[in-house]
Amino acid sequence: MLILATNDDGVYSPGLTILAKALKELGEVYVVAPDREQSAVSHALTLHRPLLVEQVMDRVFSVNGTPTDCVNIAVGGLLPRMPDIVVSGINKGGNLGDDVTYSGTVSAAFEAAIMGIPAIAVSMVARQDFIFQGAAEFAARLARVLLDKGMGKDTLLNVNVPNLPPAEIKGVKVTRQGRRIWGGSVLERIDPRGKKYFWIGGEVENWIDSPDADHEAVKQGYISVTPLKLDLTDDAALGVVRGWGELG
Amino acid sequence: MLILATNDDGVYSPGLTILAKALKELGEVYVVAPDREQSAVSHALTLHRPLLVEQVMDRVFSVNGTPTDCVNIAVGGLLPRMPDIVVSGINKGGNLGDDVTYSGTVSAAFEAAIMGIPAIAVSMVARQDFIFQGAAEFAARLARVLLDKGMGKDTLLNVNVPNLPPAEIKGVKVTRQGRRIWGGSVLERIDPRGKKYFWIGGEVENWIDSPDADHEAVKQGYISVTPLKLDLTDDAALGVVRGWGELG
Repeated sequence: MLILATNDDGVYSPGLTILAKALKELGEVYVVAPDREQSAVSHALTLHRPLLVEQVMDRVFSVNGTPTDCVNIAVGGLLPRMPDIVVSGINKGGNLGDDVTYSGTVSAAFEAAIMGIPAIAVSMVARQDFIFQGAAEFAARLARVLLDKGMGKDTLLNVNVPNLPPAEIKGVKVTRQGRRIWGGSVLERIDPRGKKYFWIGGEVENWIDSPDADHEAVKQGYISVTPLKLDLTDDAALGVVRGWGELG
Repeated sequence: MLILATNDDGVYSPGLTILAKALKELGEVYVVAPDREQSAVSHALTLHRPLLVEQVMDRVFSVNGTPTDCVNIAVGGLLPRMPDIVVSGINKGGNLGDDVTYSGTVSAAFEAAIMGIPAIAVSMVARQDFIFQGAAEFAARLARVLLDKGMGKDTLLNVNVPNLPPAEIKGVKVTRQGRRIWGGSVLERIDPRGKKYFWIGGEVENWIDSPDADHEAVKQGYISVTPLKLDLTDDAALGVVRGWGELG
């Protein structure tokens, strides 16, 4: 098996090192990851400048770009052939609910799925003091099952792990993507020269209640596994918009 | 009506100017857009540095950030209240099929939908010599119908317009998001100092055949309207993954 590991926290992030080590059980692991933190870069792709690659160690490369760039450079240039699976993470912070669309971690898995490669994104739901070990072991186990059982194309698995010692994790739930109640804030400040500037502030954790949602499983102490698909078409809305008639 | 117009090509892009002008029929239009081109930045959000805002004209602001930043700064700081609708575009280039996930234009509409605001993204399917007028008129008409009829929450409309004189556009089709056959390329080059670098190359236009897909409608000369949803959960895959059993 040929495995690509990547992330958005950067090539030296301990979550990626632990992940790559756990994945070595399954086969040959290449790490191709950003040279610095790239959180919240989403599915951004670098088209306007060339990308530099540094070999950091044997089969470990850093790229001065986004996670999506890394998957492209890895598959298109660095790996000996198409990988059998791509695993992205372990992210320092959850990627739950609508946040998946901002996430570099999830977008790297999304890019792999676009290429037709089985893909998993793994995130720790915490802000600090990350306990990566259980998540790394679970990622390796899930990768093995995914490779063994297979899944329809155009789907990736988004995994969120509660930040608990492995023995305290209650189990695994297969969940739906949750939905935030939007509560973003923008902070206005004044610089030393009297000029206004803005910070995009933190969101308050506020979810629409949904018993089978990803955030709910993690809150209860379970690992959440959410299958996400590439096709964003809103099937229910197709009929609604067609019913408007007067567009033509 | 209070309308927010934004884009990813930058505040001075003619597609945005024409769009804002067309939307003035519907109400008061604010433009809040990036200060420079931000193509392929996807849903990236700027959290690690403050954002500067310049007032360019009456109700026109530039932000040194991404399209998603612009929607946040507009709604959270610059507009007098929540806008009734957000329209993003008119993009210089199509946002068809899987490409929606890379697109800053579509992500701005996505962000608005997360906030619960009706949202439309509009793109011209061409590389140059853009004929924006028909697209701008259609965007205003669609915005009016969307505001009038309403739609379920958590949905946005992704519009792609063939680059034809308005009289030659055949009509409107409500479509599904298409799916590319992945054919991305990575180009390897050598710099003047002998060091290797990479460019992420262009994709060959190669689609999986699908009569009701967005790219097919545009190819036939129709405006394509695709409803996209925020919930990426793959419903069909939920059962598959639950069937794996041994994860717990």
